[in-house]
Amino acid sequence: MKLDSIFRPKSVAVIGASNTPGKVGYVLSNNLLKSGFEGDTYLVNIRGGEILGQQSHKSILEVPGDVELAVISIPSRFVIETVEQCGEKGVKALIVISAGFKEIGPEGAELEKKLVETAKKYDMIIQGPNCLGAINTHVPYDLSFASTLPKKGSIGFITQSGALGTAVLDWIIAEEIGFGSIISLGNKADLDEVDFIEAMAESPEIKIILLYLESIERGRKFLEVTERVVKEKPIIVVKGGTSSAGAKAAGSHTGALVGSFLAYQKAFDKAGVILTDSIEDLFNYAVAFTEQSLPKDEGIAIVTNAGGPGILSTDLIESLGLKMAQLTDKTKKTLIESLPTAAATGNPIDILGDALPDRYHIAIEAALQDPNVNSVVVLLTPQAMTDSLTTAKHLRELSLFYPEKPIIAIFMGGGWVSGATKYLKDHGVPCYNFPEKGIKTLNALYKYSRQLKLANQDPPVYPDIERDKVRKIYDDVKKDGRKVLFPHEAAAVVKAYGITAPGSMLATNAEDAVTFAEEIGFPVVMKVVSPDIMHKTDIGGVELNLANSQMVRIAFEEIMLKSRKAQPLAKIYGITVDKMVPRGHEMIIGMSRDSQFGPMVMFGLGGIYVNFLKDVAFRLAPLNERDAQHMMEETKSYTLLQGVRGQAPADIDSVREAIIRIGHLVWDFPELEDLDINPILVYDKGKGCIALDVKMTLRD
Amino acid sequence: MKLDSIFRPKSVAVIGASNTPGKVGYVLSNNLLKSGFEGDTYLVNIRGGEILGQQSHKSILEVPGDVELAVISIPSRFVIETVEQCGEKGVKALIVISAGFKEIGPEGAELEKKLVETAKKYDMIIQGPNCLGAINTHVPYDLSFASTLPKKGSIGFITQSGALGTAVLDWIIAEEIGFGSIISLGNKADLDEVDFIEAMAESPEIKIILLYLESIERGRKFLEVTERVVKEKPIIVVKGGTSSAGAKAAGSHTGALVGSFLAYQKAFDKAGVILTDSIEDLFNYAVAFTEQSLPKDEGIAIVTNAGGPGILSTDLIESLGLKMAQLTDKTKKTLIESLPTAAATGNPIDILGDALPDRYHIAIEAALQDPNVNSVVVLLTPQAMTDSLTTAKHLRELSLFYPEKPIIAIFMGGGWVSGATKYLKDHGVPCYNFPEKGIKTLNALYKYSRQLKLANQDPPVYPDIERDKVRKIYDDVKKDGRKVLFPHEAAAVVKAYGITAPGSMLATNAEDAVTFAEEIGFPVVMKVVSPDIMHKTDIGGVELNLANSQMVRIAFEEIMLKSRKAQPLAKIYGITVDKMVPRGHEMIIGMSRDSQFGPMVMFGLGGIYVNFLKDVAFRLAPLNERDAQHMMEETKSYTLLQGVRGQAPADIDSVREAIIRIGHLVWDFPELEDLDINPILVYDKGKGCIALDVKMTLRD
Repeated sequence: MKLDSIFRPKSVAVIGASNTPGKVGYVLSNNLLKSGFEGDTYLVNIRGGEILGQQSHKSILEVPGDVELAVISIPSRFVIETVEQCGEKGVKALIVISAGFKEIGPEGAELEKKLVETAKKYDMIIQGPNCLGAINTHVPYDLSFASTLPKKGSIGFITQSGALGTAVLDWIIAEEIGFGSIISLGNKADLDEVDFIEAMAESPEIKIILLYLESIERGRKFLEVTERVVKEKPIIVVKGGTSSAGAKAAGSHTGALVGSFLAYQKAFDKAGVILTDSIEDLFNYAVAFTEQSLPKDEGIAIVTNAGGPGILSTDLIESLGLKMAQLTDKTKKTLIESLPTAAATGNPIDILGDALPDRYHIAIEAALQDPNVNSVVVLLTPQAMTDSLTTAKHLRELSLFYPEKPIIAIFMGGGWVSGATKYLKDHGVPCYNFPEKGIKTLNALYKYSRQLKLANQDPPVYPDIERDKVRKIYDDVKKDGRKVLFPHEAAAVVKAYGITAPGSMLATNAEDAVTFAEEIGFPVVMKVVSPDIMHKTDIGGVELNLANSQMVRIAFEEIMLKSRKAQPLAKIYGITVDKMVPRGHEMIIGMSRDSQFGPMVMFGLGGIYVNFLKDVAFRLAPLNERDAQHMMEETKSYTLLQGVRGQAPADIDSVREAIIRIGHLVWDFPELEDLDINPILVYDKGKGCIALDVKMTLRD
Repeated sequence: MKLDSIFRPKSVAVIGASNTPGKVGYVLSNNLLKSGFEGDTYLVNIRGGEILGQQSHKSILEVPGDVELAVISIPSRFVIETVEQCGEKGVKALIVISAGFKEIGPEGAELEKKLVETAKKYDMIIQGPNCLGAINTHVPYDLSFASTLPKKGSIGFITQSGALGTAVLDWIIAEEIGFGSIISLGNKADLDEVDFIEAMAESPEIKIILLYLESIERGRKFLEVTERVVKEKPIIVVKGGTSSAGAKAAGSHTGALVGSFLAYQKAFDKAGVILTDSIEDLFNYAVAFTEQSLPKDEGIAIVTNAGGPGILSTDLIESLGLKMAQLTDKTKKTLIESLPTAAATGNPIDILGDALPDRYHIAIEAALQDPNVNSVVVLLTPQAMTDSLTTAKHLRELSLFYPEKPIIAIFMGGGWVSGATKYLKDHGVPCYNFPEKGIKTLNALYKYSRQLKLANQDPPVYPDIERDKVRKIYDDVKKDGRKVLFPHEAAAVVKAYGITAPGSMLATNAEDAVTFAEEIGFPVVMKVVSPDIMHKTDIGGVELNLANSQMVRIAFEEIMLKSRKAQPLAKIYGITVDKMVPRGHEMIIGMSRDSQFGPMVMFGLGGIYVNFLKDVAFRLAPLNERDAQHMMEETKSYTLLQGVRGQAPADIDSVREAIIRIGHLVWDFPELEDLDINPILVYDKGKGCIALDVKMTLRD
C-alpha cells in the first residue's frame, strides 16, 4: 500500500538527531528508541558522535543499511539537500518535522515547492513539512514529541494542528484511552488527509478515524474516499475555522484556502462523516464507537437511581431528536413485580435512591430484553446505599451478555464513583460523569447507525436532458463577450434540462412579437432585454397581461420608447414575449459553487421572502431522489407544499425532480458560476411547476 | 431573617439518629458531629442510648436545652406526631428528610398537607419533606449525606433533586470547588426555591446562586425576587423537564406541575437569570463568577501557543455572538517588537509552539493593556519547550495586576498540564482543559455583565386606555353565556386599549348595515357573525369591496340567505360592517397564558405563514419599550419591516406600541385566555397599523 513506508516501516532514520535534552532532535530520537520499534534505527547528526548511547552518522548516505523512512528535523534551509541525499539513499518516505515552509510566507512556499519536486524525483512520499510526526502503537513506534506512548487501541487520529495533537495525546494518556495511530498533517505539501484516511481504512488495527481539519483541498476526492470508508469505519471530524474570524485565523495559520463552512457541513453529511464541534466529544464518541455495537433501531431506555438526572437525560434525548422507548407490557410487568412499589416503571425506570446492584441488574436486564429497547442508558448517583463498583461489574456482565444493544453508563459524582468509572472504562463500557456527554455520544452512535442503513442511491438519469443545446447557448454567450445570460437564454437552458419555463422568445421587432405571442397563446407578458437596464419595471420596461395582437404591438413600441428614454445609451437586445402564468407557491432553486466541494444546490421559500426568512436548504450536487426529498423536508415551507389550512397539496414530485435536474445541470457545467430560479412557481399536485424567472452567470 | 433557623441555627436536633453505620440516621448524626458545628447538638432516638459516643434522647421533648432546628429522618407515619412535639418544644425550623409524602401519591399528599398544617400551628418553617438536607461550610454544619464537607467557598446551590445534589457534592469535593451552602428542596411543602434564593441573597458569604429546578410554582414571585437578586448576585439555573418526555418524568418525580419550557425561558430572560442545559456548565460558570470580575465591554483577545486551539476558540467566540477584539496599533507594535517574526500578531495572538513563560507574559500583558480588550483567553498546549507551571504563575500574577479584566485559562492536555491547572484553580484563575468549556464560561460572564448594564425600565403608561369599557364587554360576553368574543367585540376591546381596528359594527338588518357603511365610509366589507359558522368565506358569509349603499343592502340579504341555507340551525347574531383597509405587512400579535408565569405576548410574521414558518418571538407581560423592541428584532420579519429591496420602512413605532398595549391588556385581564390579532396590518412609517382580525377567548 502507498503509505506502508510510513505506517509500517522496516527501518527509520532520524535526521537531525541530538544529544541535548529538550531539543526536538533529542526528543524524537529518545522517543523512537524507547518506543519498542523493532526495525533498524539510525540516528543522523551532522557532527556525528554518540547519541543516546547509539553511534550516529554524519549523513544519511553514510548509514550502512537500507532506510525506508526518514524523519527530518533540521533547519529548513538544509532540508532540500538532505532530501536529495535521502533520494539517493533510496528512502521511500519522509516525515518532515522542520518548520519554515509555506506557513511563513512566499519564500517558504517556494522552498516547499522545491521540497516536493525533489522528493517526487525519487518517488518519495512526504508527511508534513511543519508537522509533529507520527505515532503507531501497533508497530510500535513513536516519531513524535509525546512523553510516552498511549495505550494500544484502535482509534486513528489525523490532525492538521500538531499542537492539538500533542495536547490530545497528553490528555488521552491521562485518560487511558487506547490509540492505534496518530498523524500530524502539517502543511500537507504532498500527503493529505485523504491519503491518510485511505491508509487507515486499510489498516486492520484501526476501527475508527478521527480528524481535526482546518481545510480540505481535494474536496471531491475527500467525498469519494470518505463515502466509501464510512461504510466500514466511522469517521468523526472537528472542523476549525467555521466562523469568519476563525477561518481568517486558520488562513494565517497554515496558509490553506478555507472554503465555506456550509459546504463542509454538506460534504460531511453527504459522505456520512460525523461532524462535532468539540475535541472532547471527538474522543468521547470514539471510545463508545470502538467498544459498543451500534443500536439496531430507535428506542432508548434509561435506568436510574435518581429522578433529576433521569429527567435531564430524557430532555437531552428528546432535544437531539432521539426516541425514548415505549416499554412493552411484559417489561412493565417484570419491573412492577421485581421493583419496590415506589419505583417508577415507565421510562426512565427510576429504581430509587436505595437501589443495590441486584436491583440495577434486574431493571437493566428487563430493559435489554425488551424488543422496543435498542440501547440503554444507566444512570447512577452516589447515595447512602449505593455500591457503584459492584453495579459497574453487573453492568459489564450484562453488556457482554447482550452485546447487540449498546449501553452507556453515566456515573455522576467524584470520589465515590471513581473506582466504578475506571472499572467500566477498563472493561469496554463507556462511562461519563455527566448526562450531556453520555447522551451526545449515544446520539453519535445513532447517527452513524442510521447512516449505515441508507441504501446506495445514484442520481437518476434523465434521457431527455439536452446537454449539447446548453453547451451551444453557453458558447454563444461567451462569444458575445457576456457572462450574464439573458432571461430567454437562461430559460432555454433550464428547458433543455427538462424543467418547464415560460415560452420566452426574443423579439427584435413588433411583428415578431405578435407572431411569437400568437404562437405561445394569450395573455402574454413582455420584458425589455438589456444588460444595462437593471430595474426594468421601474422604467416601464415590462408590460403584463397583454390579451391580443394589437396590445402586443403597442406594448412593443411603448417598451422600446420608454427604455430608450430612460437609458438612451443602453444596449437593447430586444423584448422577450412570455406566456402569463397563473400564481402558485413561490419557491426558489439556486446554486452556489464552493471552491473545494463544487456546486451546491439550494431550495426553499422564494419570492421576496427568501432574503430575510432564509428558509432554505442546501445539498452538494449531483443529487439523488433522497437528497432532493430531504432537502425539501428540511425547509419549513415543505409544510406549505404539503397543503396547509385545507389547501390542496402542491406538486411535490415535480419540485423534487426539478431540484435533481438542476443538480445535473450545475454538475455538468463547471463554468456555471451562479444560478437562481426565483420564483419557481409550484402548482397543485399533478400540475407541475414553472421556472418563472431564471438568472444565470458564467465564470471567466 | 425568615430562614435564619436553617441558615445559622444555634442548636440542632437529629430526630431518628442511629448507631447503625449505613443507616440514614447514622450518616446524618455522624456528619453533623464531625462537621465542626459549634452550637448545641442533640440526637433523638426512640430507644435512647448512646449514639456515636453521645447520649441520645427518646424524644425531642426530653432534650434539656432549646432546639432551634430539628432534622427529621423517621418513617413518614411517625412524622406528624414528631412535628407536633417539635412545636411544643419551641423548635423554629424543620428539615424533613423522610420520604413518603406527595411523591408517593394522594395518600402521601394528604400526609404532607397535615405536616404543613401542624408546623404552621407552631409557626415552624419546613425544608422538604423528601429532601437530602442542607450543608453550610461557613457555620459550619453538615446536615446531609455528604461523605465530607466541601471546601469553604461562596457558591450557593439549591437543588430540587436530592440525588443530583449528592452527585454534585461528590464531584465538587473531587474537583476542590469551594461551596458556601447547599440546599435540597425536596417536595417544597413549605419553603421553596424563592425562599432560599432570598435567604442566600441576604447571606454575605454567598456570592452566586446556582439552581437545579424541575418546577416553579410561584412563577411571578420567582420573577420578582430574582429580578432584584441578580442585580447583586448572579443566578444560574439548570431546568429539568424541558422536553415533553422529560416533563412527564419530572411530573412523576415530585408531583409538581411543570409549566411550558418556553415560559420558563422567557421568565429567566426577563429576570436576568442565566439558563444553561448542563450541570457541568453550572459549576464551570460558578467558578469563574466567584473568582473573576465581569468584562466591562466587548472585545476578547486570545493568546495561544498553538494555531488549532486558537482557531477553535475563535469559532466558538463568534458562534456565541461574542466579539474578538480589534487590537490597537500600539498593541500590535508592542507585539511585533517583542515576539519572534513568525508569531501572529493579529487576534488570536499566536506566540508559537516554543513560547516560554516570558513570551506568554509579554503577550498577555500587551492584550490586557489594550483598551479594546476587555477579557483575555490564554490557551496553552504542552509542547517540547512549554513550561506550563511557570506560565500559570505569570498568569496569576497578571490576573492580580489587572483585576478588572477577566482571564480564562485553557490549558489543554493531561499529565503535562495538571500541575499548572491545579495551581491556577487554587489561585483563583478559572482553568479548563478544552476550549468549549472556557469560551462558554466567558459567554456566561458577558451575558451577566450585559444584564447588569440594562437600566430599569417600567412598562409605559397609556392614559388613553379604557379599562372599564373592556370590563363591560367581557361582563356582557359572560352574561351571554359565551367565552368566545365576536369580532366586533374583540375589535372594540383592542380599540379600548388604543389600537386601531376597523370600525366593526354589528348590523341586525339591512338598513342598519347601510347606515353603518355610510358612517364608516365606502368601500366596506361585511361578515356574518355566528358562533356556529366556522368557515364564513366558504359558505358565502363574507362580501368584500362593497362600494355603495345599494351593494350593502343586497349583500346583507345575500349573506343572510346563504348562511341560513348552509347552516339552517346556526345562531346568527347579525352581520359586521367594516371599512375595507389597504394591504400592509401581515404581522401577528397574540397571547398565551402560562400556568406559572401568566400571560406571554407573541409577535411575528402573520397571515398564513405564521403556522409553518413560526417566525415569532415571545415575552412575558407586562412589557416595556425594550422588551417590545427586542421581541421585534428577534424575528426575521423585522428585516421586512425595516424595508427590504428598496421598499419603504414600515411603521415600527406603532407596532412596538401595539405590542406593549396588548401586554397591558393581557396583564390587566387574567380572565383573557387566548388572544390572536392575525393579521395586524402594518403600513409605511408614520401610517400606523390596523388590527384587522381579532380573536379572543375568555376562561371560565
